[in-house]
Amino acid sequence: MPNLCTPLCAILGTRLPIVQAPMAGGPTTPALVAAASNAGALGSFGFASTQPEAMQRDIEAVRALTAAPVNLNLFVLPQTPAIAARDQQAALDAVAAYYAELGLAQPPAAKAPYAPDLDAQLNVIEDARPRVFTAHFGSVDQARMRRMQAAGIRIGVSATCVAEAQHLQAQGVDFIIAQGAEAGGHRGSYLRDPHETMTGTLALTRLIVRAVNVPVVAAGGIMDGAGIAAVLALGAQGAQLGTAFLTCSESGAPAVHKQSLLAAREDTTRVTEKFSGRAARGLANRFMREMEEQDAAQLAFPAQNMVTGALRAASAKAGNPDFVAMWAGQAAPLAREMSAAQLVATLEQETLDALDRLAAMRR
Amino acid sequence: MPNLCTPLCAILGTRLPIVQAPMAGGPTTPALVAAASNAGALGSFGFASTQPEAMQRDIEAVRALTAAPVNLNLFVLPQTPAIAARDQQAALDAVAAYYAELGLAQPPAAKAPYAPDLDAQLNVIEDARPRVFTAHFGSVDQARMRRMQAAGIRIGVSATCVAEAQHLQAQGVDFIIAQGAEAGGHRGSYLRDPHETMTGTLALTRLIVRAVNVPVVAAGGIMDGAGIAAVLALGAQGAQLGTAFLTCSESGAPAVHKQSLLAAREDTTRVTEKFSGRAARGLANRFMREMEEQDAAQLAFPAQNMVTGALRAASAKAGNPDFVAMWAGQAAPLAREMSAAQLVATLEQETLDALDRLAAMRR
Repeated sequence: MPNLCTPLCAILGTRLPIVQAPMAGGPTTPALVAAASNAGALGSFGFASTQPEAMQRDIEAVRALTAAPVNLNLFVLPQTPAIAARDQQAALDAVAAYYAELGLAQPPAAKAPYAPDLDAQLNVIEDARPRVFTAHFGSVDQARMRRMQAAGIRIGVSATCVAEAQHLQAQGVDFIIAQGAEAGGHRGSYLRDPHETMTGTLALTRLIVRAVNVPVVAAGGIMDGAGIAAVLALGAQGAQLGTAFLTCSESGAPAVHKQSLLAAREDTTRVTEKFSGRAARGLANRFMREMEEQDAAQLAFPAQNMVTGALRAASAKAGNPDFVAMWAGQAAPLAREMSAAQLVATLEQETLDALDRLAAMRR
Repeated sequence: MPNLCTPLCAILGTRLPIVQAPMAGGPTTPALVAAASNAGALGSFGFASTQPEAMQRDIEAVRALTAAPVNLNLFVLPQTPAIAARDQQAALDAVAAYYAELGLAQPPAAKAPYAPDLDAQLNVIEDARPRVFTAHFGSVDQARMRRMQAAGIRIGVSATCVAEAQHLQAQGVDFIIAQGAEAGGHRGSYLRDPHETMTGTLALTRLIVRAVNVPVVAAGGIMDGAGIAAVLALGAQGAQLGTAFLTCSESGAPAVHKQSLLAAREDTTRVTEKFSGRAARGLANRFMREMEEQDAAQLAFPAQNMVTGALRAASAKAGNPDFVAMWAGQAAPLAREMSAAQLVATLEQETLDALDRLAAMRR
């Protein structure tokens, strides 16, 4: 039996050094997470915008589908301070014409709290004791981290530059996710400006592998086994793939999002703050382009999500890509339509094939 | 004897699938090019801004140092139309304070022609009949290309997106250089906006390998053998490294440029048009930051080179990094100080080590 194992597999409790990336806002259904984990990868819930009660339901649902390790992911951010009425109005005015165009009622002003309570979310995770907890935007406080690790939870956090990786190592994380510029979704930058830490996955992975001693998982632009073999060559011990799983049958991404990924022939992604208030990469569409051209008003993350929420939902429901946040990495044209089990099996075989191809060069 | 050969090596006439990147404006001395080629890589002259007579001198000089194949590179761009006096003045005004600060006389208005005559440059290359000619910003016209190929010159051109790669394949190039977003120096984009083709090397290499049948050389963020093994895993048949060679003893880069590369600890590069008039990646410095913040006036490429030329030269001479165009890729912190022969030997050994590490994962 061929064996792709790296030391990271012992940390994650998986057969394969492959992580199905956590993706907040719908894609990571219990069916997707369970299928990825059952196939030998690490299935992951993106719980950033999920209320504690819904997190508990999803965790129960996935446990009915798999006994394999899973990963629960959160955005570790302080509460956004209440936003002034004038700023609220400017952000609503900036999108009013779009709401009217889709025949929707104008949205109400965003109300604090703008995101689920982080402590309550973390308590759900501590109670659930998953094999893995990963975080975006830095780690949890040291007392919490030690308690989680003592309970057997392995902790990984995203880094977009060397300083973030070194900071995470000093805090004692079990592994680091090197999030290259190719990656879809939110940039996890927390020490430097996200727009100034757009280092490509190849360069960033190598820089971080050379700078720290903890295992590194590479993320960004990896869509097949050749990509996985490439990051293993760079010294990463694992690969995290998000976009590749978005088009799986079990993914909860809207149909228009899946169709747009499968139709992509070029990297037409952009990094925008206009959907959520924080820099995130997705397929370019009318909303991104127009809001950026107009330098339109927006609220801070995550309040901007409330400004755009009903618009995104209605656009997705209507099969209209114009106003949907279609997060995607730069290698989206390599997206494939298959089940998560098929995808993981395909990734495994392709990685082995790539390693065989490289081994033949040594002969 | 371990053998890293790919089919591309037969095209380039080299022992190793490694290209020392052409870098215009000084770094690619005959000593550097000859040392890279003598060590088994493909040494390359960056002749974009070199007058035909100087090209001839460099070609003669390299031939006295090596019988191995070399690559001559040009920027294939139409002549810039004459620039209006008002625009000239605005561009000069934008840099006047910097000239004064360094105690330099204000530069005269840039005079057409703003670049060496492309046809004359190409004639020098046809006469010299190097093993390899590479181009940035698209290929030469079809008649010229067929004539060069009939004379035994192998032709490679940069692509920054799938459409450019497919276009080059249709034109009949011998190989394609996939220039990922990590790459230092000028973006070779010629069908799409350079700022909208910033696809990371990992994603771009895989996209282009999957989209065309001609051999692909990957460029951008590759600094060591792990990076070379990574792009081979992606299906590239070769790796082009620029920044790694900038700090070689034979490189003609200014001392302050070399020192800044060797001192880098993070990716602090930016893509700017302010030095030359075209998007290029280099180490962030005061000139880039201030000119961009002010959205300062600039001329089209390459005329802006004339506006900034004396400033860059004086700053380099004074060992002051503030006004030097310190082109660099995003993995600059991995730069090493050694001779080109040592670097090529090190890259070869590291690549073999990386392949051995990967092969061990299959056991």
